[in-house]
Amino acid sequence: MWRSLGQLWQNMKQKAILKPLQKAFPIALPPPPRRAEPQARQEEVHACPAYMELKTRFRDIGRLSAIGETLGRDFLTAMPSGAYASRLGQLAFLFKRMHEELTHEKMQQLLDEARAHEYVNPNDWDKWDSANLQEMENLYIRHCHIGGELMEEKARLEYVGRSQHSALLAKGNWEDAKPLLEEQISLHRKIALAQQKTTNQTSAYESLMQNYMPGITLEKTETLFRDYARDLNKIMPKIEEQQKQRTPPLPLTGDYDNTAQLWLNNSLLHVMCFDFERGGLYETGHNPVEGGTPDDTRLVINTADHRNFLKMIKSSIHEGGHGIYIQGLPRKTWRYQPVGQDLGAAVQESQALLYDMIIGRSKAFFTYLSPRVEGLFHDLGNPELTAENLYRLRTNVAHTPVRRGADEVTYFFHVYARFQLEKELFDGKLNTADLPEAWNNKIHDLVGIRPDNHKDGLLQDVHWFVGKFGYFPSYALGHMIAAQLAEKMTEDIGTFDKYILSGQMRPIKDWLNEKIHSKGRLKSMDELIYSVTGSDLSHEPLLRHIEAKYL
Amino acid sequence: MWRSLGQLWQNMKQKAILKPLQKAFPIALPPPPRRAEPQARQEEVHACPAYMELKTRFRDIGRLSAIGETLGRDFLTAMPSGAYASRLGQLAFLFKRMHEELTHEKMQQLLDEARAHEYVNPNDWDKWDSANLQEMENLYIRHCHIGGELMEEKARLEYVGRSQHSALLAKGNWEDAKPLLEEQISLHRKIALAQQKTTNQTSAYESLMQNYMPGITLEKTETLFRDYARDLNKIMPKIEEQQKQRTPPLPLTGDYDNTAQLWLNNSLLHVMCFDFERGGLYETGHNPVEGGTPDDTRLVINTADHRNFLKMIKSSIHEGGHGIYIQGLPRKTWRYQPVGQDLGAAVQESQALLYDMIIGRSKAFFTYLSPRVEGLFHDLGNPELTAENLYRLRTNVAHTPVRRGADEVTYFFHVYARFQLEKELFDGKLNTADLPEAWNNKIHDLVGIRPDNHKDGLLQDVHWFVGKFGYFPSYALGHMIAAQLAEKMTEDIGTFDKYILSGQMRPIKDWLNEKIHSKGRLKSMDELIYSVTGSDLSHEPLLRHIEAKYL
Repeated sequence: MWRSLGQLWQNMKQKAILKPLQKAFPIALPPPPRRAEPQARQEEVHACPAYMELKTRFRDIGRLSAIGETLGRDFLTAMPSGAYASRLGQLAFLFKRMHEELTHEKMQQLLDEARAHEYVNPNDWDKWDSANLQEMENLYIRHCHIGGELMEEKARLEYVGRSQHSALLAKGNWEDAKPLLEEQISLHRKIALAQQKTTNQTSAYESLMQNYMPGITLEKTETLFRDYARDLNKIMPKIEEQQKQRTPPLPLTGDYDNTAQLWLNNSLLHVMCFDFERGGLYETGHNPVEGGTPDDTRLVINTADHRNFLKMIKSSIHEGGHGIYIQGLPRKTWRYQPVGQDLGAAVQESQALLYDMIIGRSKAFFTYLSPRVEGLFHDLGNPELTAENLYRLRTNVAHTPVRRGADEVTYFFHVYARFQLEKELFDGKLNTADLPEAWNNKIHDLVGIRPDNHKDGLLQDVHWFVGKFGYFPSYALGHMIAAQLAEKMTEDIGTFDKYILSGQMRPIKDWLNEKIHSKGRLKSMDELIYSVTGSDLSHEPLLRHIEAKYL
Repeated sequence: MWRSLGQLWQNMKQKAILKPLQKAFPIALPPPPRRAEPQARQEEVHACPAYMELKTRFRDIGRLSAIGETLGRDFLTAMPSGAYASRLGQLAFLFKRMHEELTHEKMQQLLDEARAHEYVNPNDWDKWDSANLQEMENLYIRHCHIGGELMEEKARLEYVGRSQHSALLAKGNWEDAKPLLEEQISLHRKIALAQQKTTNQTSAYESLMQNYMPGITLEKTETLFRDYARDLNKIMPKIEEQQKQRTPPLPLTGDYDNTAQLWLNNSLLHVMCFDFERGGLYETGHNPVEGGTPDDTRLVINTADHRNFLKMIKSSIHEGGHGIYIQGLPRKTWRYQPVGQDLGAAVQESQALLYDMIIGRSKAFFTYLSPRVEGLFHDLGNPELTAENLYRLRTNVAHTPVRRGADEVTYFFHVYARFQLEKELFDGKLNTADLPEAWNNKIHDLVGIRPDNHKDGLLQDVHWFVGKFGYFPSYALGHMIAAQLAEKMTEDIGTFDKYILSGQMRPIKDWLNEKIHSKGRLKSMDELIYSVTGSDLSHEPLLRHIEAKYL
C-alpha cells in the first residue's frame, strides 16, 4: 500500500494535482523545481510520507544550524563590539528555535510512523535512510525533555564564554572567572538531568559526553584511559632517559612576519588539499573556532605569534584536519540531514590529531618544511631552522603545565586530568570552589608539574567557559583513533613519508574521504572503526606509535 | 478589567506563580530575568495580552531579519564562492520563515484583539504603542495574501541578482542580462497582485513603491516630479550658461593609494559622528549594501578606485548617512519592534543625500578636505587638489549617461527616467524585450544624452536585478526631503558651513537624531516632515537649493 502511494506521488508530481490533495495527505510538498542547492536524497521521493516530512523538518533545522555557524563565526571575528548584546540574543533565539523545531509536538508521531513503515516495508528503506531515521530518533530522544529556555541559555552562555575567556585568561584571576564557570556547571547539570530522563545514562557526566560523542560509554572510556595510562607510565622513564641523551633543541629566536606566516599556513592547507573554494583560513584574537559546514568551512585560528611560527602551523593543520573532515561529508546527497553529519568529537579530533600530531610532528614533515621556512623568513642556514632542530622542538617530551603546548606523549595526561576533574564536578564529588587546588594537584599527579598560576592552570582552556563539559576525553580518544587509522592507512597506501616529502598529500585525504568522511553517520563510531581497521577501538596502536617514535 | 489584569501580571511576576497560570491565560511569558539585550519597551508589561504576544512575535521576526542582514553581508563580502548555492537556500528559507511568522494564522486574531482593546481602553495605549500596533497591522496587511514560496523566491533571486550583477555589468550584454530581469519582473508582478488584494493600491507599481515607502501614493509622486521637472527645465539653460563661463575643473591625475583612501573615509565617518562601536566601513567588489541594524551597522562600499578618490568619499558619506539614521533609531526602547524601524526608502535616501549631495558637495566640505588630501596623498600644492577645483569637479553640471556619476542637478532626470520606465513595465505598456531602446530614448529625452552601450545604459544599476522595483523614486523624493530638512536645520542651528569647516559635525547629527532618527515610525513620513518643517513635502526647497548653488 505504501509502495503504491509512492508511485501515486510520482504521478501526482507530474500531473500537478498536488495542491488540492495536500490537505488530505500529510505529505510535505517537494521543493520547487528550480532549487538553490542540489540536494539529491533530500528531494528524493520516499514511500513513507512521514519520513519525507521528517526530512523536510530536519533540513530546516540543519539550515538554522548552518546559519548559526555563520553568525557565530561573525560574532568572534568581525562583528563590531556594540552588537554584542543583540547578537547574543539572536544566537540564543536561534538555538531555542532549533530546539523547538526538533522537539515539535508532531515529531514523536512522525518518528513512530516512519519506524512502523520501516518495519512493515523493509525493502523501501536502504541503509542510508534507515541510518538517517535512527539519527533523527537519537537527536529527538536526547532533546525532548530539555526545556527550550535551557537551550537558549546554553547558546547565550556559550558565546558569553567565547568572548570573555580571552580577557579572563589574560587577567588570570580565579575569582573573576568563577561566577561564569559556576553558571555553566549549574546549567549543564540541569541539561544532563533532563536528558537522563530518556537516555538512561549512568551519570550526568556520561550524558554530557554523549552530546559530543554519540554512543560512547563512560565505562569504555575509563578502561581505555586506565590501560593507556598504565602502559604509558611503564615506558615513560625510558622515554625520558632517551630525551636526556638527545641534543637539546635550539629555541627559535627570529621575528617571523605575520603576513608571511599566514601565507605559509594557507599554503600548507593547500598541500593538505583543503578546498579553498569552500573555505579559507582566518585569524582571531579569540580561541580557534571549530565547525563550519561542508559548503562553508572557514577555519578560524589564533593570530600568529611573531616569535614562534610553529604555533600557527600546529593550529592550522589541526583545524585543517577538522575542516577536511567537514568538507568530505556527503553534502551532495545528505546536506543538512542527520546522517550527513560528522560522527562527533572523538572522530573529529582523530582527523585533527592525525594531521597535527602524527603527520605534523614527523621527520618527513620538517624535512619538507625546513628549506621553505629558510626561504620564507630570509634566513638560510640558520641552525634553528634545520629539519632536525624543528623536529626536536616539536617532539621534545617535557612536563609543561599547558595542554596546548604539550608534546605528543604527555598530552594524554593533560586530557586524563581534565576528564577526571570534570567527572568529579558532575558526580558532585568536587565543588567549583575547590577546583583550583584540585586542578593543581591533579596536574601535579598526572603530568608531573604544578602550575605556577591560574593562567597556566585551570583558566587555560576555553572549553568549560563555553560549557563544553565531556568534550576533553575526545582528544585522547581521537588520538587513539588517529593512530589506529594511521596503521591501517599505511597498510593500504604505504608510509606517509613519501606523500609528505613531496608535498603531495592528496592520497592521505582521499583515503580518509573514502573510509571516514563520506560515510557521515551511516555507521556508529565503533562500527566504523571496526569496519575500517578490522579491530575495535584500542589504545595499543597509539602506544605502538609512541614507542616507535620516542624509544 | 484589563487594567487590573495588568496589575495582576505585575504581582504574578514577583510571586513566581506564573507557570501554572500560563495555560489559562494566553499571555506570552516575559523573557528570563538576565537578558542578553536591554529591551525596555519590549519587556514592558502591557494591559493587553494580545499586544504583548504580538510584541514577542514581532521581536522574533525582527531577530530573524537582523540575522538575515548578517548572512547577506557575509554573502557579499566574505563567504567562499563554493558556499553560494547553500547560502542562497539558507537566505531564501529565512525570508520564507519570516513571512510565515508574519502571516501566522493567529496573527489576524491577535491584531483584532489588540485593536479592540485599544478602542475600549484608550488610556492603556500611549502613542508609541498605538503606532507600533498600527505598523504591525500594516505589515500584516501587505503580506497576508502573498504565498510563502513567492517570498522565498524573492529572497533567493535578490541574492542571485546581487552576486551576478557585477559580472553582467562587466560583460555589458543585454541578452545575458535579460532572463534574470524577466524573472524578476514576473515575480514582482505576482507579488504586487497578491498585495493589491488587501491594500487597494491603484496599480501594481504603486503597490511596489509602498514596499519601500509606506504610505506614498503614485499620484503625489507624479505631481512632485512633474512640478520639479517643469521648474528645473526652466532654469536649466541658465545653469548651463553659468557652467560655460566657469573655469573647467582639472581632472584628477594622481594614483591614490587604496589603504590611504580607506583610512580617509573611515576618518570622514568619524567626523560625521558615525558610531564605530556599532559599525564600521568595509569594501566589496559588489555593489554597496545598505541596511544593517542599529546594533550592527557595518557599511559596505565599493573597493576604492585608485584613480579617483572622490568616488569612495561619495560612497562612504552616502552610506554613512544611511548608517547614522539606522544607528539613531530608538533601539534601546524599540529594538526589533515595527515602530522602531526607519520610515522607508525616501527618508533613508534623504539622510544619505543630505550628506552626499548637500553637505558633501559644499564649498565648506572641500575647504576642509583639500589640505588633508594634499597631506595624505603626499602632493602639496597640486592645483588639482585645491578646494576650488575639487568643488568644481563635484558640482560640474554635465549630461552623463550614468546615474551614480551624475551631478546634483541632472541627477533628478536619471531618477525620473527610471521611474517612468518602471511604471510602464508594470502597467504592461512596455515589454522587457523593448527595454533597451526605451531606456536609451528616455535617457536621451530627459537627461539629454544617449548611452553608447548597455554598460552605461540599462545595466548600470543593480536595483532591478535584485528585484527593487519602485525604489528609484525614493532618490528624488529623498533629495527633496533632504533640502526641506536642510532649510529647517539651518534655521535651528545656523549654516552648516561652520560645522563642516571645523570638522565638528555632531550638531548636524544631533539635530537629525532628535528630529528624525529617534522617532522611528512613530509618525508617517508625511506627518514627520510636516511636524519637523511646518510644511508638507514640496519640491520647492530643493529648487531653491539648486538655484542658490548653481545660479
